[in-house]
Amino acid sequence: MDHDAFRAAAHATVDRICDYYATLEARPVTAQVERGYLAPRLPSEAPAQGEPWSAIMRDYDAHILPGITHWQHPMFFGFFPANATYEGILADMLACMTSNPAFNWNASPAVTELEFVVLDWVAKMLGLSSEFLSLDSSHNGGGIIFGSASEATLTLAIAARERAMSMACAPGEDAQAARTRLLPRLLMYCTEQTHSSAQKAARILGLSCHVLPVHRDDEYALRGATLRDAIARDTQAGYVPFYLVATYGTTNTCAIDCLAEIAEARGGAPHLWVHVDAAYGGAALSVPECRDTHLDAINAHADSFSTNLHKWGLVPFESSPTFVRDRTPLVHALTLTPAYLASKGGEDLVSDLRNMQISLGRRFRALKVWMVLRSYGVQGFQAHIRSHIAMAAAFAERIAAHPHIQVPVPPRWGLVVLRVTRPGLDAAQTDALNRAWEQQLLAHSADLLITPTVVPGIGVCIRWVVGAVSTRPTHIDRAVALLGACADALS
Amino acid sequence: MDHDAFRAAAHATVDRICDYYATLEARPVTAQVERGYLAPRLPSEAPAQGEPWSAIMRDYDAHILPGITHWQHPMFFGFFPANATYEGILADMLACMTSNPAFNWNASPAVTELEFVVLDWVAKMLGLSSEFLSLDSSHNGGGIIFGSASEATLTLAIAARERAMSMACAPGEDAQAARTRLLPRLLMYCTEQTHSSAQKAARILGLSCHVLPVHRDDEYALRGATLRDAIARDTQAGYVPFYLVATYGTTNTCAIDCLAEIAEARGGAPHLWVHVDAAYGGAALSVPECRDTHLDAINAHADSFSTNLHKWGLVPFESSPTFVRDRTPLVHALTLTPAYLASKGGEDLVSDLRNMQISLGRRFRALKVWMVLRSYGVQGFQAHIRSHIAMAAAFAERIAAHPHIQVPVPPRWGLVVLRVTRPGLDAAQTDALNRAWEQQLLAHSADLLITPTVVPGIGVCIRWVVGAVSTRPTHIDRAVALLGACADALS
Repeated sequence: MDHDAFRAAAHATVDRICDYYATLEARPVTAQVERGYLAPRLPSEAPAQGEPWSAIMRDYDAHILPGITHWQHPMFFGFFPANATYEGILADMLACMTSNPAFNWNASPAVTELEFVVLDWVAKMLGLSSEFLSLDSSHNGGGIIFGSASEATLTLAIAARERAMSMACAPGEDAQAARTRLLPRLLMYCTEQTHSSAQKAARILGLSCHVLPVHRDDEYALRGATLRDAIARDTQAGYVPFYLVATYGTTNTCAIDCLAEIAEARGGAPHLWVHVDAAYGGAALSVPECRDTHLDAINAHADSFSTNLHKWGLVPFESSPTFVRDRTPLVHALTLTPAYLASKGGEDLVSDLRNMQISLGRRFRALKVWMVLRSYGVQGFQAHIRSHIAMAAAFAERIAAHPHIQVPVPPRWGLVVLRVTRPGLDAAQTDALNRAWEQQLLAHSADLLITPTVVPGIGVCIRWVVGAVSTRPTHIDRAVALLGACADALS
Repeated sequence: MDHDAFRAAAHATVDRICDYYATLEARPVTAQVERGYLAPRLPSEAPAQGEPWSAIMRDYDAHILPGITHWQHPMFFGFFPANATYEGILADMLACMTSNPAFNWNASPAVTELEFVVLDWVAKMLGLSSEFLSLDSSHNGGGIIFGSASEATLTLAIAARERAMSMACAPGEDAQAARTRLLPRLLMYCTEQTHSSAQKAARILGLSCHVLPVHRDDEYALRGATLRDAIARDTQAGYVPFYLVATYGTTNTCAIDCLAEIAEARGGAPHLWVHVDAAYGGAALSVPECRDTHLDAINAHADSFSTNLHKWGLVPFESSPTFVRDRTPLVHALTLTPAYLASKGGEDLVSDLRNMQISLGRRFRALKVWMVLRSYGVQGFQAHIRSHIAMAAAFAERIAAHPHIQVPVPPRWGLVVLRVTRPGLDAAQTDALNRAWEQQLLAHSADLLITPTVVPGIGVCIRWVVGAVSTRPTHIDRAVALLGACADALS
């Protein structure tokens, strides 16, 4: 494709993106295809000769787009949101234009330096302590934009492991001997409601992970007493608890682990690194009325904090700003510098992004954060968050008025958990009823997308989350009507 | 930003991208800024109120673009290339439009299914065995597009570790006991010239890694005898060698480890997984004249193979297609399925991308591979590779004619290693001379970008790699002239 062909194709693509958003509501929210639909429609190998762009786009329309579930659709209420915004699309065009794998400062100074600037912008917008800032030389904190919350949870586990190893190494003990002695004893904690990426991190690292119980009466929050008992029992058994993944807004119910209690309980585990996974909930900290005592606890007690701006935060994938109170263990754990990667004036290890992440190179992630925050402003970002919180509250109130629909967990932010009930049904029968409701809703998957789940102590439920930029109160009306009608239709 | 404002801004961005490429050659190839230049120019927090797009773009031009090193510049000869292509930019615009974090099939069927289609396209284009195909049901192979070679090396180490653990577990032995017994004994191998990501993977996983010697006489390739001796010595010492990162084209000199010899030598280590890191070199396999016996050895002996299409392969970041001969250990190592991630008809674990990668969600990577390969066709892709190989050969021949410039290692593909020499200088003095040459070239960093390095047995050298889509023979002329003039200017 030459320059002129690109200019024409790119202008056409812009119009296509505009048309996509203008017609989004008319599309089926969930892809209406069957598993394995695509391969039979496409050649089994690349063409020998190049094809015209028009043919490629024709196939995109015919074969790819029908297999896309529209996460920006106003009736998308599944999983958590994954916002694409106009600003984010523009920023990504520019990031793609220059293609900067900024593994070190030299590779593109702006990519590295803008990352630290916007990390501080995000930290301040969310009310995080200055101890987490990258450009505040009075502290040793800092951050990086990971690609996902999973990557954050894993990478900080590595830092926590190395910190614990150096703390637990006996004076004069050989480092390798200490490693052999300690590795099998290192222990991670998460709860039954922590995101699966925590257990996956433990599995990836080959380390033990104990899953702590949480209870409906506590709204699925980890309590201090549970952690204290676990630490006592596990240290007694010879374990060295080194990492706890606490959550600010769990996937199932948006539970918030009791960080202040956790901070008291961790006294028994001096090596414990407390990471706060606020993948979805972090964006809510931008509005002061959501902060309450949880923010104080994060600022006082978290060793690290991570949020996904690519969920509710208006920035397209991949953007998980992550903050550490002390960057030293992270940088020490991940720094290796062969000659061909040495950075000009690179004595300051923290200036090279690769020294805080697993991969060497990756995209220019900071640009879209910068452009989104400038275009929206903090007030625009807050208005976006507040509008969804208000819509979710209105939705919860109205759907709970349905005679057979319960909201069994207090709603939080954009998430409402739903369950149909009927008089006289036991738990198993109610679960079956909810599976039937799920099937009804699946039959309407072109109209609305929700996520089925299982909440301990309650049973089969529907998760409903509002978060798309395009969702308006009229869509809430339609969701209430459709969920109600499907519940009514259950025999 | 509303719909109409986006349409205007996006069309303007298209024109800006066109202008960028049209004026690329006039820009300084290396960013001419000093470390720490950016933060003082930008506000220390996000604006309270949203700003107009024009103001944001004004600051992009004033503050971001000057800090960008132009990897697409025709005089970029540093590191390895990181191609952005017009097709790749268009594909990424479309991927960003729909924002699909396809952690499971449901999340967007096309994202998952197109990935398996294009992985097979890439495998066939590179001549890989049908055992590595995803959609060939007569084998158990498959693949995934990782974000980077580092991610591939790490993720396959996890699969290799779990495979070794299950193989080495004694009959009836408790799994946890086996883990405790085996983990400290597991041993990775790489060479002195393997990319640093291999040792980083070992460090991340907390496992031992032995770095095997390679020699100039072998052109820095790992030989079978070296591995055989290491396996004998290390198994004698109680280690369980489980993972070898072999390289098809090392960073320093494009060395190719002797896979056929390695395959013979691995007999002494029945648990050894041989991964072939062809991050840069993989693209060369698209042209039959580069394949020779190395491809046969890969097809016969590699447990896995990975290449970065985002280097020489015309696909923008991030795109590291990776192939495994047996996907079972990979899928088993990384599968965890909470209720909210269950996939419709999801019994076939391999259908969910998250079960072969660390992160849950990520961008729609397959689209750009598909669009690039269709627009270029295999022949267009080959022409791109061949043109750089020819330019590098011409460059090597001409630069070696300079009285003081040596090409101390046989050039391969787009890479040429250079060293200045003067009669009567010893090794240390020659190193100092090359450091001085590097400083001269750094003073011309606006005109040309190269990477200094150190090659064992030779000393300080300059790596020169041609790979940008925009580079033409005239740029080779200029590179020859500039490198020669800087060598002449040395006192």
